[in-house]
Amino acid sequence: MAQLSHHDVTLLLLALAVLLGAARLLGELARRVRQPAVIGEILAGVVLGPTVLGRLLPGVSASMFPQEGDLALVMHGLTTVAITLFLVVAGMEVDLGTIWRRRVAAVSVGLGGMLVPFLITAPLAYVAPRLFGAGAEQSRVVFSLFLATAMAISALPVVAKILIDLRLFRTDLGMTIIAAAVFNDLVGWIVFALVLALIGHTTGAGLTVPQTVGATLGFVLFMLTVGRWAIDRVLPWVQAHLSWPGGVLGFVLVLAIASASFTEWIGVHAIFGAFICGVALGDSRHMHARTRETIDQFVSFIFAPLFFASIGLRVDFLENFDVLLVLAVILLATVGKIAGCVAAARWAGFVRREAWAVGFGMNARGAMEIILGLLALDAGLISERLFVALVVMALVTSLTSGLLIERVLGRPKPVRFWNYAGARTFVPKLAAGDRFGAIEELARTLSDTGVDPGAVAAGAASRERVMGTGLGGGVAVPHARLPGLAQPVVAVGRAPDGIDFRAPDGTPARLVFLLVTPAEDPGAQLRLLASVAEICQSPQTVTRLLEAGSWTEVLAALNAASASAP
Amino acid sequence: MAQLSHHDVTLLLLALAVLLGAARLLGELARRVRQPAVIGEILAGVVLGPTVLGRLLPGVSASMFPQEGDLALVMHGLTTVAITLFLVVAGMEVDLGTIWRRRVAAVSVGLGGMLVPFLITAPLAYVAPRLFGAGAEQSRVVFSLFLATAMAISALPVVAKILIDLRLFRTDLGMTIIAAAVFNDLVGWIVFALVLALIGHTTGAGLTVPQTVGATLGFVLFMLTVGRWAIDRVLPWVQAHLSWPGGVLGFVLVLAIASASFTEWIGVHAIFGAFICGVALGDSRHMHARTRETIDQFVSFIFAPLFFASIGLRVDFLENFDVLLVLAVILLATVGKIAGCVAAARWAGFVRREAWAVGFGMNARGAMEIILGLLALDAGLISERLFVALVVMALVTSLTSGLLIERVLGRPKPVRFWNYAGARTFVPKLAAGDRFGAIEELARTLSDTGVDPGAVAAGAASRERVMGTGLGGGVAVPHARLPGLAQPVVAVGRAPDGIDFRAPDGTPARLVFLLVTPAEDPGAQLRLLASVAEICQSPQTVTRLLEAGSWTEVLAALNAASASAP
Repeated sequence: MAQLSHHDVTLLLLALAVLLGAARLLGELARRVRQPAVIGEILAGVVLGPTVLGRLLPGVSASMFPQEGDLALVMHGLTTVAITLFLVVAGMEVDLGTIWRRRVAAVSVGLGGMLVPFLITAPLAYVAPRLFGAGAEQSRVVFSLFLATAMAISALPVVAKILIDLRLFRTDLGMTIIAAAVFNDLVGWIVFALVLALIGHTTGAGLTVPQTVGATLGFVLFMLTVGRWAIDRVLPWVQAHLSWPGGVLGFVLVLAIASASFTEWIGVHAIFGAFICGVALGDSRHMHARTRETIDQFVSFIFAPLFFASIGLRVDFLENFDVLLVLAVILLATVGKIAGCVAAARWAGFVRREAWAVGFGMNARGAMEIILGLLALDAGLISERLFVALVVMALVTSLTSGLLIERVLGRPKPVRFWNYAGARTFVPKLAAGDRFGAIEELARTLSDTGVDPGAVAAGAASRERVMGTGLGGGVAVPHARLPGLAQPVVAVGRAPDGIDFRAPDGTPARLVFLLVTPAEDPGAQLRLLASVAEICQSPQTVTRLLEAGSWTEVLAALNAASASAP
Repeated sequence: MAQLSHHDVTLLLLALAVLLGAARLLGELARRVRQPAVIGEILAGVVLGPTVLGRLLPGVSASMFPQEGDLALVMHGLTTVAITLFLVVAGMEVDLGTIWRRRVAAVSVGLGGMLVPFLITAPLAYVAPRLFGAGAEQSRVVFSLFLATAMAISALPVVAKILIDLRLFRTDLGMTIIAAAVFNDLVGWIVFALVLALIGHTTGAGLTVPQTVGATLGFVLFMLTVGRWAIDRVLPWVQAHLSWPGGVLGFVLVLAIASASFTEWIGVHAIFGAFICGVALGDSRHMHARTRETIDQFVSFIFAPLFFASIGLRVDFLENFDVLLVLAVILLATVGKIAGCVAAARWAGFVRREAWAVGFGMNARGAMEIILGLLALDAGLISERLFVALVVMALVTSLTSGLLIERVLGRPKPVRFWNYAGARTFVPKLAAGDRFGAIEELARTLSDTGVDPGAVAAGAASRERVMGTGLGGGVAVPHARLPGLAQPVVAVGRAPDGIDFRAPDGTPARLVFLLVTPAEDPGAQLRLLASVAEICQSPQTVTRLLEAGSWTEVLAALNAASASAP
């Protein structure tokens, strides 16, 4: 039977390791500079693909990530499965209740964000198809219909990823954007199916365009009513009678992949079915948080990076780069989309800042645009120049989307007290036996950081005398304010035998955090205190912090705790 | 670029959904009849492949699971990745300390289990190659070398899965079997590489046979010393500075897949590198249990079933079935392997029962045998008849392995108290206000089960008067023994407001379990009590049991709790 050669298996695994490694690495870097991880993931593909590595070491890039042959096929299969699973997770995150509450906003933003770019682009493309890079011998009507649709859609997976990365997904704002994007996607895919039908493309099921539209709407309606109801009934049975959590995991994935296959068959892309199935699944209150987390982590950190990185592998971004066309496409897409969304969001009652956030969020294209572009390219509908312009537009809009949302919302970075601590201000085992001794000992470690230890010790001690700073649960937070400090400083000390900090619960403190904040920023102290309290509320975390062998291990424990904190 | 057609994507997703669904379903059924899940998973493939579905609905089977073309290639790629990841998980479960402690047993069992079948088979195959289904025009030496190797190897992944399914993996016995299988595999792959070299097959790296052997040993040595040390240093850094748990997940998978690619390149199969890398990773004390669990669950319940099911798709088991050859192969493989292992295990100091368990465990072939067989078939070394005989032998040995281990060890089924309860003996809200009233109310539900409620109530009440049966934590376990009972009966009642059962911690009971056991089996009561205590020790579980809306939901909560109990 057909199978990969020994050589291909070697290359496939190597390619996966390199792609995943680069995607995760650049994804982490993107997070460092406060960008959504997805940007780094897409860039990883650009670096490894024909654009960069293909120029520097053409042999290496071409043999690891070939454009043709068995390996390319397998990679396409793998990434198709990956994006399908990612959409299931995105779907499971959707809260139907919130969407229903925001239905007016969702429909108006979805419509506004489609109609404005569509109506701007269609006549321009009709008048000057060659200028925009139409394929040879295509009817003006079909081409202008396609380009207008391409400008009008949003990329549900990228939008979802950006919102998840920004921790905005489950907010009302995030759910409105998602609801609008779902609506947008639904309409977009239907229009696109129409375009494909006009140029003679047939669906797997051999359906006519109206049949495809009908089947799609029927599927959505079915899944969100009968399907949702049935899932809510079946899930408890699965959890009761099958092995755990294998029963639920299998059930979720089988159902989602089958739905994906169904929508692909009726002529809408597979990911649409996966998404809608995810919505129906996630809505059941019987879906255990633990199961959800297992799927979510594996998909978000493994499958999604693989898929997003694979996008950049597909094209040479330099060779087919037409500056004017790229600028025109970006301008058309961005201005129309943002204007339409902002106007609609304002109309639906969002305050100005949030309306702009909606516009910027909806502006992100990405996977969707590229899939659409690829299909159009294959169908001879567009030139390679336009394809590259669409991809660049997708990247630029994805790249700016998160940034602009953050800018316009001005969300403060969450305070994590350990960002102000370090190995030098860490005392693995306090020598002092009482609280004032411990404060002095911790204050002494601050001298390296340019802070006056005497002033800190005196300030913290006088505060301590007013009322003990033991929080209970084995944690104490002596603190002091110092005038003229550039930023907070934190010293961390451990006392395995415990030091009495007069905690309300009477337990001696085994972890002591000395918090020093600028006198000019009264809020800083409160934020740090809240951060310590949040992290140390779990006895498990306290134990782990006490057992950590080095400052790096302390950091690891704090990171783990902060990731699982609500 | 090369990509799957619309039609192929539809079929790929459908095939994945069907394959995963069938594998999970038959896997669950196998567990029901106390077989390792892997048996059901392999059978799912046989049912869906050419053997059964291919006969009944040839069109359906062939279009979903084609043997040639793009789809077959992609499936092969996917299952290769799946088996690679499964071996990482199996590797992570290995406890090097235990293996080192049992090194004498491991090496002697590994050697014994190889040499005996090898030495029996080699001369027979040399004398009568045609009888055993040698390929045309093959040298007797090479063929007899191959067949002897095929009889001598064990299947590490199947052995691991069986031991995990039987909850024997981390025991001394399990670790000895795994250590012997690792040793066996290592030698087996090296001999097989020699065979391939003799018939002119070259490795990806173009290494000679001694070079492959050297590179393999070097890789194992490196990973288990320097690699292990480096991983233990890098993991805390990854957890401290990258996002959690994405950093660790990515690190683990990238490293494992890269190792797999490396061993594939030097001419040993990819899964060997994944396994060794898993061993090095799992040995680090910095590997969080939670991360391990996420990878483990996703891989064991999704990737492993997919791979094992895909095996059955590859051949028609009826057409190429040669009864005599199958019997001969099974006999040669089984007798030699078991005899060699049992003798070696006895010599290494195992008691008789355990020595037989080692022999039965090592006897399981499966993936390994089939991969070996496929490579040999492709190389023209063996006929299709022999290939089928090897596959059937692999299935039969896998099928009997777990069964025989269970038989010879006589491990009692773990007692789960809810196996003796049911919807009819469940009282969602007890009306009674005190403990004796609650006992009577619960006893009344038992009348349906043929138990005398009066006798139960009287027995439990008199026991209750001696000492309260409140366990603390909101749980009480009134109990009674009844003569002539066929098996235990349990009634479950909930009292949201709490009923005082004189618990040591003074908390009133909100969950009351009435345990009725046969007077003739004094141990039954203790086992049920232990089962209740184990499950209800987590306050979370108690809350979930109180919130469950129906008996099915109670069962779901109990199953979830029992899966996560230590």
